[in-house]
Amino acid sequence: MSSKIRLGILGGGGDSLIGVLHRVAANMFDQFEIVGGVFNPNWDENISFAQKIGLSKDRIYQDFDTLIKEEVSLPESERMQVVSILTPNFLHYPMAKKLLENGFHIICEKPLTTTYEEALDLQRTRELSNCIFAVTYTYTGYPMVRQMRKLVEEGRLGKIHKIDIQYYQGWINPVIHDPVKRAATWRLQPEKSGISCCIGDIGTHAFDMIEFVTGMQVTKVLADLNYLYEDNKMDIDGTVLIRCTDGVKGVIRASQIATGEENSFVVKIYGEKAGMKWEQENPNYVYLMEEGEALKVLKPGHLYNSDLSLDGTKLPPGHPEGIFDAMGNIYKGVARAINGKPYDSGEFPTIIDGLRGMNFIEQTVASNSGGNIWMDLD
Amino acid sequence: MSSKIRLGILGGGGDSLIGVLHRVAANMFDQFEIVGGVFNPNWDENISFAQKIGLSKDRIYQDFDTLIKEEVSLPESERMQVVSILTPNFLHYPMAKKLLENGFHIICEKPLTTTYEEALDLQRTRELSNCIFAVTYTYTGYPMVRQMRKLVEEGRLGKIHKIDIQYYQGWINPVIHDPVKRAATWRLQPEKSGISCCIGDIGTHAFDMIEFVTGMQVTKVLADLNYLYEDNKMDIDGTVLIRCTDGVKGVIRASQIATGEENSFVVKIYGEKAGMKWEQENPNYVYLMEEGEALKVLKPGHLYNSDLSLDGTKLPPGHPEGIFDAMGNIYKGVARAINGKPYDSGEFPTIIDGLRGMNFIEQTVASNSGGNIWMDLD
Amino acid sequence: MSSKIRLGILGGGGDSLIGVLHRVAANMFDQFEIVGGVFNPNWDENISFAQKIGLSKDRIYQDFDTLIKEEVSLPESERMQVVSILTPNFLHYPMAKKLLENGFHIICEKPLTTTYEEALDLQRTRELSNCIFAVTYTYTGYPMVRQMRKLVEEGRLGKIHKIDIQYYQGWINPVIHDPVKRAATWRLQPEKSGISCCIGDIGTHAFDMIEFVTGMQVTKVLADLNYLYEDNKMDIDGTVLIRCTDGVKGVIRASQIATGEENSFVVKIYGEKAGMKWEQENPNYVYLMEEGEALKVLKPGHLYNSDLSLDGTKLPPGHPEGIFDAMGNIYKGVARAINGKPYDSGEFPTIIDGLRGMNFIEQTVASNSGGNIWMDLD
Amino acid sequence: MSSKIRLGILGGGGDSLIGVLHRVAANMFDQFEIVGGVFNPNWDENISFAQKIGLSKDRIYQDFDTLIKEEVSLPESERMQVVSILTPNFLHYPMAKKLLENGFHIICEKPLTTTYEEALDLQRTRELSNCIFAVTYTYTGYPMVRQMRKLVEEGRLGKIHKIDIQYYQGWINPVIHDPVKRAATWRLQPEKSGISCCIGDIGTHAFDMIEFVTGMQVTKVLADLNYLYEDNKMDIDGTVLIRCTDGVKGVIRASQIATGEENSFVVKIYGEKAGMKWEQENPNYVYLMEEGEALKVLKPGHLYNSDLSLDGTKLPPGHPEGIFDAMGNIYKGVARAINGKPYDSGEFPTIIDGLRGMNFIEQTVASNSGGNIWMDLD
Repeated sequence: MSSKIRLGILGGGGDSLIGVLHRVAANMFDQFEIVGGVFNPNWDENISFAQKIGLSKDRIYQDFDTLIKEEVSLPESERMQVVSILTPNFLHYPMAKKLLENGFHIICEKPLTTTYEEALDLQRTRELSNCIFAVTYTYTGYPMVRQMRKLVEEGRLGKIHKIDIQYYQGWINPVIHDPVKRAATWRLQPEKSGISCCIGDIGTHAFDMIEFVTGMQVTKVLADLNYLYEDNKMDIDGTVLIRCTDGVKGVIRASQIATGEENSFVVKIYGEKAGMKWEQENPNYVYLMEEGEALKVLKPGHLYNSDLSLDGTKLPPGHPEGIFDAMGNIYKGVARAINGKPYDSGEFPTIIDGLRGMNFIEQTVASNSGGNIWMDLD
Repeated sequence: MSSKIRLGILGGGGDSLIGVLHRVAANMFDQFEIVGGVFNPNWDENISFAQKIGLSKDRIYQDFDTLIKEEVSLPESERMQVVSILTPNFLHYPMAKKLLENGFHIICEKPLTTTYEEALDLQRTRELSNCIFAVTYTYTGYPMVRQMRKLVEEGRLGKIHKIDIQYYQGWINPVIHDPVKRAATWRLQPEKSGISCCIGDIGTHAFDMIEFVTGMQVTKVLADLNYLYEDNKMDIDGTVLIRCTDGVKGVIRASQIATGEENSFVVKIYGEKAGMKWEQENPNYVYLMEEGEALKVLKPGHLYNSDLSLDGTKLPPGHPEGIFDAMGNIYKGVARAINGKPYDSGEFPTIIDGLRGMNFIEQTVASNSGGNIWMDLD
Repeated sequence: MSSKIRLGILGGGGDSLIGVLHRVAANMFDQFEIVGGVFNPNWDENISFAQKIGLSKDRIYQDFDTLIKEEVSLPESERMQVVSILTPNFLHYPMAKKLLENGFHIICEKPLTTTYEEALDLQRTRELSNCIFAVTYTYTGYPMVRQMRKLVEEGRLGKIHKIDIQYYQGWINPVIHDPVKRAATWRLQPEKSGISCCIGDIGTHAFDMIEFVTGMQVTKVLADLNYLYEDNKMDIDGTVLIRCTDGVKGVIRASQIATGEENSFVVKIYGEKAGMKWEQENPNYVYLMEEGEALKVLKPGHLYNSDLSLDGTKLPPGHPEGIFDAMGNIYKGVARAINGKPYDSGEFPTIIDGLRGMNFIEQTVASNSGGNIWMDLD
Repeated sequence: MSSKIRLGILGGGGDSLIGVLHRVAANMFDQFEIVGGVFNPNWDENISFAQKIGLSKDRIYQDFDTLIKEEVSLPESERMQVVSILTPNFLHYPMAKKLLENGFHIICEKPLTTTYEEALDLQRTRELSNCIFAVTYTYTGYPMVRQMRKLVEEGRLGKIHKIDIQYYQGWINPVIHDPVKRAATWRLQPEKSGISCCIGDIGTHAFDMIEFVTGMQVTKVLADLNYLYEDNKMDIDGTVLIRCTDGVKGVIRASQIATGEENSFVVKIYGEKAGMKWEQENPNYVYLMEEGEALKVLKPGHLYNSDLSLDGTKLPPGHPEGIFDAMGNIYKGVARAINGKPYDSGEFPTIIDGLRGMNFIEQTVASNSGGNIWMDLD
């Protein structure tokens, strides 16, 4: 019998991009075995997808409730230990809640839920359990993002005075200007996507990155969101002025109409002793600008990096690893947690991070609709 | 007798950086001859500087008023035709006004004046004259900035939907955190520097760049400025939400506490058909991101560039020209204007651009002090 | 029963880097199931490694001969279908030969063998079989390397006139200058590593890349190799002048003493209509320089790429994939071949490529020892 | 009377690129006054060019011999002190020789002469004079090239083990493939251009850069030159294996058929303690790769640079200076030398550098025509 952690998957079937990302990540360190799940609400597609990825159909279930019912009836040594939730956002909350109530560890895609209230309830539920609850802010799994966190922690930047995060994409540009196309895009339908498109989808990554890297909290927001057309109900661009712990000022800029941009997530943090930059599209470089010294470019796998960073690199310097490897690192951390081994708090984001992200989304939208006014986060 | 344009210079003596920039620029195309000026209020330093740069002392004057008096008494064929004003900001207004009243063309450093009111008065004075009045927003002289202007004009970007300009420096970081040092820095003294440090010095470049490149006007601002310390009276960082013509949204980010940044002036404009980027520190590249196509990198000197851009390049592609060359291009345009030759409106910024810059500074500061509220520009 | 291809692995246990690379790659597209192998000559380490990566010990064998014996005795539906050879170089030949003779498909690390003669024999053996034989020149699996191949094929470069390949590393610098350390390094011991260190290990990648991308053959070499110290028997740096099909000239530059370089594999091909560049450390960019046009930067996942390139990208543009993904693409191609599905010849290198690589190594070393003279390849 | 150095110019009229480069450079530091010269063999063009650049026609001469005759007849305090030779290559030798014999300092474009023999004679002539003789290997004037020289001098790289210089252009590609065009290009006519096109024009820059930066000498060459077509008499591409002082190995790669390349002059030097890179197209960055440390990027104007480097930068960091500024630095050094002030030997290349360049060109061509054999330099 395999000693791997037994993993179930909800969603991620068919051509799902998030599906392949999680499967590759789960397999990356030989720590997980995918034992079953519900990949698709349609049974035929569900079962044929399971076969396509080489699973036996024994533990491919009709639906989520059946999965719970059947799995809890299995002996503990066979039962799924952790379940990855890759379904549409509105299903995260009910699924995660029931999984927690039945003692399953969870790896959940972001955003955690569709409302802050749901997120609060989920967090309370988790506190009553012993379950690990990871939220896949994937980018925190990059070795050089981990290194940025350590640089701040070690005081290399000194007191932080300025934060600037960009997350620019252009994918919605070919859709947004055509009334028919924009009406047909689910991301632009509040009933399917919640109250925010751009801030909810990518602005939250920017928000989480700030808190992950700096250890500070975002405390206030003043947002200027962009809907472009009157009949468009969802923000597709926005600039958010922020205040962090101790009144530190900053800005989050997110866009899906930045034509030609792909996935330009850029982190800039400036402190009294140094500034620091990182770009997701070239994730293996941290630019450290120490006052009065030559610019330093830190790269993965070198011994000058922290243990947390080095743990996230598999090959020697110069062998570029990417986003699959970042997600793999998050799964590796979750495996350590599930196996009761010591791990660094930077190895994976938790439900707390997911909860704060929901708080951010709601207050950002409220700031904009209130007329670009300051709103407090909890 | 030389056929060159007779140029006088006010300020820019000693180790002045702006001084060498203007002198090299003036000499670059064999169009100007520096005939005299007042380089320094101290007579000994004035005269010794003049000698150092190889000028005869005949037309080195005691002070500005003497210069005016003596020069107007010279026959027109000998008289200075144009005067470059490189003095501290508060002297721009009185000097420029008197020069205009005496019929001299002017090349003036930015910011144009210390208040919007002065700027308005100066503009009215100029309208009554026939004088050319250039304001040296130097960066508009780069061939690839000129090319960006033409790309927008030609419709390569389509309708613009998003503007993002960054101007980050870190030079004030070693000063600002020390109460003694910051008290001793003239840039941080309102009586010497006006109402704004960061926005006044570099935010205005960002503002001007938007209007230069896009042809749109900035119509509203909401600013969040940063003073860091209670005893500091001048902004040293700020984020400004903007509205442009037709309600187009954008953001200007300026900082002097972005530790380790040198002169990171970055322009990003996104339209319906394409996005576009440019960075001052590597000024010979425009990144054109057309929807669905490979990223294009445009470089100076190639025939695919506009005439306006090509006119700003002296050597074949691959021979990098820099900021001295950018300023040289502005002087070249001014020479054409003075000589009554045809020139493109993109060849040099005028008093109108300087005036608008003052409007921007005042409304930005007002927005911040009013509690981060929207303010209209004229 | 899983429908996955049954994969056995030879070598790659313990901390082997090549081991994790192959395992992640094999799992990447849900096409392979690792069923057993010999990870380590030491039985205890072998078995404990197998457990660590979650394998049952049923098909972990004492040694290679036992593996062959036991596997051939299994019913065809259970037997390993393909075996990955990740052992030290000198074992490639005997293992591959016996595997072929027993009808196993092979995925073999490069260099194929330790001598050209062995390689020729292996190639003859393979011709008598029906076995797929892939040689893992990993870098050919990058989507943008595949795109380069297609750009040449489509004639975008026109007739090629100049080839320049660099493969610079600095890893041996801390070893080579110390007589004790260099004597203790197995890579520098001919009995363990064959006749060449630098050319054999990385020069061959450069050689293969030329033939993969251009479709031309390298026909002659004139090499200047560098041993640095008299007691060092293995080249650790070299420049190789080359002639390709139709007399096209070029150069291969390889080094392991390029201090500070990590894995700087750079491809430059210049043709009559365009030039083209690619860098392994930032593998998601191809720079296409067409005569008289703006530089184009091609990136993965865009529809302007060829099918071969697009097949190698899992996520949308801007989500960087890396070297694990490149190796995953090679395994994906091998899976198609084993499953009898159609595939492009660019999907994985074969024994022919491995054979040519051995020819290159031997002639390069001969050229140098002969006094930097031209040597012909077969 | 101006205290500037009196400069005469030979050649560089009309649209000459080298002409504007030298004039801007001469004016850059207020050290030179152009007093006259012979810009063009055609008198009308000569005189109209002089007027265009604002010179009085008094000292514009009919031809070179007249210039010598008239200038030597002037009192020493009025006579030209230094003459810049910007004429076609074959005129360098006779002009320079006569100038030396008449006691003029010289700034001469490279290549110094058309043959090594001429260069030797010129060098002997100069030794009998007290004249300063600068040869404008312009690229040595870049602040970061100067910094590289100092880094080597200070031992930051340790003992050098590997040198790799690239100088790739693509300009001849549109010409070379057309028999009519290539026959009509003067650069490809031996009677006008000497024995080498590519090596003579740009290979020499690469050669000089090695000796300037490392302080070592190139002692042997083995060249593989490329003529592409039988009727083409001049090399337009080549790779040169080199040996330097103490047998250090390296390679010079030069091309004019590297389609799409502009002026890609790249320096890579690897030593025992560090490697170092620089690219002419982005000249304000030196990449210093110290063993085991983060990559450092050195930029101009910072106090961590040497005096020699800092002397070559006019504005603070982040204000890019370019090739005109590099040439300006060379003129600045020559001014110091002429004025009898102390200067660093790195401030400008001399006739010795020009002489060695001629030696390199001749031996490189001889190596190739001899069948790619090793040739010794003096």
